[in-house]
Amino acid sequence: MATNPTMGGAPEAMARYRAVRALSRAIAEPLSDADSTIQPMPDASPAKWHLAHCSWFFETFVLRDHVSGYRLFDESWAYLFNSYYEGEGERLPRARRGMLSRPSLSEVLRYRDHVDSALAEALPDLGPEALALVELGLNHEQQHQELMLMDMLATLAANPLLPAAWPARASADAGEPPEMGWIEGKEGIVAIGHDGDGFAFDCEAPRHRVFLQRHALADRPVANRDWLGFIESGGYGDPRLWTSDGWDWVRSNGVEAPLYWQRGGSAWRRFGLDGLRSLDPSEPVCHISWFEADAFARWAGARLPSEAEWESAASGLDPLGGNQLDSAGSVRPLAPPPGPGLRQMFGDLWEWTGSAFLPYPGFAAPAGTVGEYNGKFMISQMVLRGGSCATPRGHVRPSYRNFFFPHQRWMFSGLRLARDLK
Amino acid sequence: MATNPTMGGAPEAMARYRAVRALSRAIAEPLSDADSTIQPMPDASPAKWHLAHCSWFFETFVLRDHVSGYRLFDESWAYLFNSYYEGEGERLPRARRGMLSRPSLSEVLRYRDHVDSALAEALPDLGPEALALVELGLNHEQQHQELMLMDMLATLAANPLLPAAWPARASADAGEPPEMGWIEGKEGIVAIGHDGDGFAFDCEAPRHRVFLQRHALADRPVANRDWLGFIESGGYGDPRLWTSDGWDWVRSNGVEAPLYWQRGGSAWRRFGLDGLRSLDPSEPVCHISWFEADAFARWAGARLPSEAEWESAASGLDPLGGNQLDSAGSVRPLAPPPGPGLRQMFGDLWEWTGSAFLPYPGFAAPAGTVGEYNGKFMISQMVLRGGSCATPRGHVRPSYRNFFFPHQRWMFSGLRLARDLK
Amino acid sequence: MATNPTMGGAPEAMARYRAVRALSRAIAEPLSDADSTIQPMPDASPAKWHLAHCSWFFETFVLRDHVSGYRLFDESWAYLFNSYYEGEGERLPRARRGMLSRPSLSEVLRYRDHVDSALAEALPDLGPEALALVELGLNHEQQHQELMLMDMLATLAANPLLPAAWPARASADAGEPPEMGWIEGKEGIVAIGHDGDGFAFDCEAPRHRVFLQRHALADRPVANRDWLGFIESGGYGDPRLWTSDGWDWVRSNGVEAPLYWQRGGSAWRRFGLDGLRSLDPSEPVCHISWFEADAFARWAGARLPSEAEWESAASGLDPLGGNQLDSAGSVRPLAPPPGPGLRQMFGDLWEWTGSAFLPYPGFAAPAGTVGEYNGKFMISQMVLRGGSCATPRGHVRPSYRNFFFPHQRWMFSGLRLARDLK
Amino acid sequence: MATNPTMGGAPEAMARYRAVRALSRAIAEPLSDADSTIQPMPDASPAKWHLAHCSWFFETFVLRDHVSGYRLFDESWAYLFNSYYEGEGERLPRARRGMLSRPSLSEVLRYRDHVDSALAEALPDLGPEALALVELGLNHEQQHQELMLMDMLATLAANPLLPAAWPARASADAGEPPEMGWIEGKEGIVAIGHDGDGFAFDCEAPRHRVFLQRHALADRPVANRDWLGFIESGGYGDPRLWTSDGWDWVRSNGVEAPLYWQRGGSAWRRFGLDGLRSLDPSEPVCHISWFEADAFARWAGARLPSEAEWESAASGLDPLGGNQLDSAGSVRPLAPPPGPGLRQMFGDLWEWTGSAFLPYPGFAAPAGTVGEYNGKFMISQMVLRGGSCATPRGHVRPSYRNFFFPHQRWMFSGLRLARDLK
Repeated sequence: MATNPTMGGAPEAMARYRAVRALSRAIAEPLSDADSTIQPMPDASPAKWHLAHCSWFFETFVLRDHVSGYRLFDESWAYLFNSYYEGEGERLPRARRGMLSRPSLSEVLRYRDHVDSALAEALPDLGPEALALVELGLNHEQQHQELMLMDMLATLAANPLLPAAWPARASADAGEPPEMGWIEGKEGIVAIGHDGDGFAFDCEAPRHRVFLQRHALADRPVANRDWLGFIESGGYGDPRLWTSDGWDWVRSNGVEAPLYWQRGGSAWRRFGLDGLRSLDPSEPVCHISWFEADAFARWAGARLPSEAEWESAASGLDPLGGNQLDSAGSVRPLAPPPGPGLRQMFGDLWEWTGSAFLPYPGFAAPAGTVGEYNGKFMISQMVLRGGSCATPRGHVRPSYRNFFFPHQRWMFSGLRLARDLK
Repeated sequence: MATNPTMGGAPEAMARYRAVRALSRAIAEPLSDADSTIQPMPDASPAKWHLAHCSWFFETFVLRDHVSGYRLFDESWAYLFNSYYEGEGERLPRARRGMLSRPSLSEVLRYRDHVDSALAEALPDLGPEALALVELGLNHEQQHQELMLMDMLATLAANPLLPAAWPARASADAGEPPEMGWIEGKEGIVAIGHDGDGFAFDCEAPRHRVFLQRHALADRPVANRDWLGFIESGGYGDPRLWTSDGWDWVRSNGVEAPLYWQRGGSAWRRFGLDGLRSLDPSEPVCHISWFEADAFARWAGARLPSEAEWESAASGLDPLGGNQLDSAGSVRPLAPPPGPGLRQMFGDLWEWTGSAFLPYPGFAAPAGTVGEYNGKFMISQMVLRGGSCATPRGHVRPSYRNFFFPHQRWMFSGLRLARDLK
Repeated sequence: MATNPTMGGAPEAMARYRAVRALSRAIAEPLSDADSTIQPMPDASPAKWHLAHCSWFFETFVLRDHVSGYRLFDESWAYLFNSYYEGEGERLPRARRGMLSRPSLSEVLRYRDHVDSALAEALPDLGPEALALVELGLNHEQQHQELMLMDMLATLAANPLLPAAWPARASADAGEPPEMGWIEGKEGIVAIGHDGDGFAFDCEAPRHRVFLQRHALADRPVANRDWLGFIESGGYGDPRLWTSDGWDWVRSNGVEAPLYWQRGGSAWRRFGLDGLRSLDPSEPVCHISWFEADAFARWAGARLPSEAEWESAASGLDPLGGNQLDSAGSVRPLAPPPGPGLRQMFGDLWEWTGSAFLPYPGFAAPAGTVGEYNGKFMISQMVLRGGSCATPRGHVRPSYRNFFFPHQRWMFSGLRLARDLK
Repeated sequence: MATNPTMGGAPEAMARYRAVRALSRAIAEPLSDADSTIQPMPDASPAKWHLAHCSWFFETFVLRDHVSGYRLFDESWAYLFNSYYEGEGERLPRARRGMLSRPSLSEVLRYRDHVDSALAEALPDLGPEALALVELGLNHEQQHQELMLMDMLATLAANPLLPAAWPARASADAGEPPEMGWIEGKEGIVAIGHDGDGFAFDCEAPRHRVFLQRHALADRPVANRDWLGFIESGGYGDPRLWTSDGWDWVRSNGVEAPLYWQRGGSAWRRFGLDGLRSLDPSEPVCHISWFEADAFARWAGARLPSEAEWESAASGLDPLGGNQLDSAGSVRPLAPPPGPGLRQMFGDLWEWTGSAFLPYPGFAAPAGTVGEYNGKFMISQMVLRGGSCATPRGHVRPSYRNFFFPHQRWMFSGLRLARDLK
């Protein structure tokens, strides 16, 4: 749920609404009805479902609740497209989202048109509460844009033919990553959390003080080349590097490399939205679990940064910079740009932290159903920071908290090392 | 694998080939690409997969093996569309057949065209071994036609919107089923098994002698009205009526009625390919497991017939008669026709027997990969007889042995009672 | 449930009762309270539970139901020691039988004394119905004597220290098994099933006619040496030899040898009640599943006998002969004795047949709770014949039908080959 | 692993060693060999295993590694009694600890004697590293004393007869809990973590600064009466009170009350080491999961304290006070004592906090196998503070961090509420 909504007047809101909504459709453009229907695992959802669910969110919380006379597009669809809001009643179990060959993708697109028309008509008359919900809905849809890309990748990877969603972008010859440097962070009391200007999710607040010990952050994420070193030195086979849960996960899943990596003779390839391609050693390693990030850090004699260390370091940097999602098309993390200082803090890939996703001091979930947005997930998940190549540009902030379970890795996740300084 | 193939000359073979192949496409006609892609449970396969697999069967065992110079439509597809032939190498795990949004339905239909053209061209020159494989392939495809209907029903039933595949056929007002009569069977030595004329699957042979005790068969299958009596008298809650495995199945699955039945207030409805409709008490009960059939028979003071009793009784009847599949469209079991004697032995629904699916004395699976067709399933499954409303007319015979596990019930399965006579 | 009980007068009955009950205690003699408490898998039960359950059977069906004024030893124990009789109410789930550290073994032995005293006192006055239940109870306890030996072996095998229950008996030097010969069986109508003299379980009746084709049985069971040939030729790795379910079982359990075999360098050892010892090539192979028996037979170009073939061949042989259980102590199958004809039909090990455990024509379970004895297991299990080295001598008959699921192998199970003759 | 060991000279060390070791035996005193062998769930271990494992710890890390000429009691036992130390090689899977009917309890007690003798002889000559390991071993054994009590309770609760371990202690009439008061905590920078004097586990260090917001803690734990209010207001049925994972846990396990509670008509009883007894409303609620603690706090308009808040508040209190374990016998949480201030911070029950069990800034696990002691569990578990009625007096400290998964509740766990102050 949003704190401090900042949608301006209706024209600005309308333009932003149209842009966000258009990007979702563009992302789904390479998908057939069938592509957009299937579900490769319970964690992932079909693209069609994402497209409909985002519309259900606007329809339910804005149009139904704030626009008198609005008629639901189809009363039976709430059951299909409610994600997890207990306050909105029974819903299709998550693991059955792939059973919806009906409605078709084109019907879902008509649903989107219906909602868009109603919202365009209603927008000029919406009050601040409803406008805040529109803004929440747009940020919500941006999150689903990234989820859609993650889930598309999982879907295509589940097909033995390994089809690409988009052709590969031209890329420079694979080089070697630059030496890893270290940047000392701030020691002492710092304030973290959203500071009140602009939109943020409820879980980013309240802003509060934390104490940081002396520490340093690596100036770039861990690269594929670094990860190959971990593999080659037997990292996946040495229990001393892993937490107990992590070691169980490695063994029961037979994990030997990041997700979507394939060994072909002596070389490695990785599957992505642009298909199966040679591994570029200079690119940041992507699609790793927290278990892997943690084991790598231990192997490297380092640790993961805390979310407060990360946010403190990021607070002076431009969240609009970096390799983020600008338009539909193949996304991939890129080799670090040259230059001094902390590189790739925003974009490229979400960086695992050593912090659990728990409420900030003074956190209170908003009243009502949208209060379920983040608060009820505050257990057993770990925080990631900084956004990825699949995060829509403009969506992420220094205070932005993403969260996943320690074993999950189908998102665009990597890591940056941290160190204690004496 | 076929015994005694009886395909006539090439023109006749070609006509039959075309008719069978056309029916498969007609069955899939109401399905979108997405409908034909998803897999509601591991037991069921997507329609698209059936359409491709049947073509793979002809392509592999006839065209690749018997037609020189034939080029595979796509070399990577064998992995996708081999069902269970170990002799043909690795294949997509059954539970992942629903991941094939690519190839699309239209690509699969092009695959069918490709195979059809090549087969039409090759047919005049095929020798008897290859012709026998064509005949096997056609019978194989007919089996998949019924599976496709079963799996379509499971797919549509997995959608909370419960869409119909075809509009309902007009049906007479629901009446009551006729009184159940009893027809005494033959006592003494009878011969069962395929006798050598015409096509049959390997598991139907050799013809051999068995000894039948005095017994009688009911003159019609158990009807929905009879089944309601079982439900209303607490049949699903009384462990004494069930085998131990059956009782575990009832309790762990919360079974209270046949598959696809829904209670609505005091009335029952059933879902079918023609949608959700009121239960017709005169129709034979359908979509029951062996566990249920066995418990019902015990409740009724009767038992299931043995397959030899059934075959002995069926041997004088017309296997082309009854309610069987003639063309694509909604299929459903029908109320028994008037008249004396054994009714509905062929068509309407497969009748569970009390016989395990085991090899007949002297059975030997054919050499080579097609020897895997039936033989390797000869454990833990029970025999059903007679074909159903979803079985293509002409496919079934008195000696025909169908088989499923005791808990399965997504096929068009029912039961006919039998009794020992003193 | 018994048919045709044949307990003579009270003195004879009392002597037999005492002998059977004493053997159970002797079997459990090497076990500590803890040994007799734990449960290595849901299929197996603790020895203490067997000792108590057999007493519960007499207490419930004889003393409680037929002896006025009898007071239950402990009213709360029925919940603990009822096995599977739905008619006797709720009971401890099977998989939790290993939670009963209380009552202790010595309390259970006092329970046995209590029941024994009451039964000794009551016996002279019991009517025929109650006497029939005593006879059933004794046969029931004999079955549990064999189960106790099986479950003790499973319990000791679950301990990494692999303790022996009894010291090994002296055995001749391991030789090679004799050549396998073939004995032709009867062709035509034969009668099988219990014929009315003496005790038999309900499932052995009614006696009825079956038709046998021309066939032959091997003159000895398959020996360890034969099985080593199967292993060495890659039998466990060749899917063509296995049923589909069997192959899934092999792969998902990583099966490479019979249960309790251990490879040590180039040699094999087997664990038994006499500890871990070198494999004797001349002994019949033991602890194999139906899946393995069936695959071996296919590999050997043979098949399993039907239960009717087996019973027909066994009907002239002495069921009291062979290597059966006479007293407590280490049991093991032995190398075949010299001499012509069918050897080791009774004793040594249960022989898997190709017949499913289904009701005979005309079978009806007895009324009441003891009707649950066998009838409710008549699905998905396969018949074994002939008794084993762990079967109390006098317990088995030509018509005796034992049954297990195709994957089970902790019992003393082996196989004898059969062949069709033209 | 210990930081700052503080064992004094050998005589003092010997006295402490003897006292700790004696208490373990006393705890197991009411258990038979069978009681001490079975394992009610994978999380729990048999008492016999605990007794042996604690000895294995001394034998391995002190005697084997630091006492020349020491002979292992039994070389094969390391496989049995290593808990989770990867550095010590393969070991019995945790879920199979209940298979060890051998060695018997008396053999395990002889093992303890053997280790005790060797240690008594060696102690005067041990150097500081070895002495530190002795001290670690004693703290380790104290942890297992509490685990033994937890696991004994789980074991007895798995028996339908619900036997008590010890008779109930006389207790005052059940009254009502006192009003809950609130004590404001410190705001600003505080230091937490072990400060260097006396023994502590590695995970309690380093001492470091954290910033606390304004907050207050309840002056007593939540009582059974409070919890009944939660139940009666439908707390277990309202998804809005639960985290998403918590709600899944409630529903899939059918949770309706704390562990070991039984509803009997309108009253509740609770099972404990003293048997099944009426619920005392004034006692602190015990055997709750983090999911339940968190839901209760939300229902009460409060939250869980952070571990830093808790430690800051506890730092002036006497860790030797309160209801802790002094000698073997029935343990139970008690009603709060009268008087002002924070009551029951130490003893009675472990208090769930809102903090994840993660490494403190600057934490590094010790080198070698004992470095596995705590560090590898630093993911997905939540911190509990303060010790319980089952924690040996003298074992707990203000800085002591206990940790369990959010769903676990067989330990003596409860909660104390906290609130943000503006």
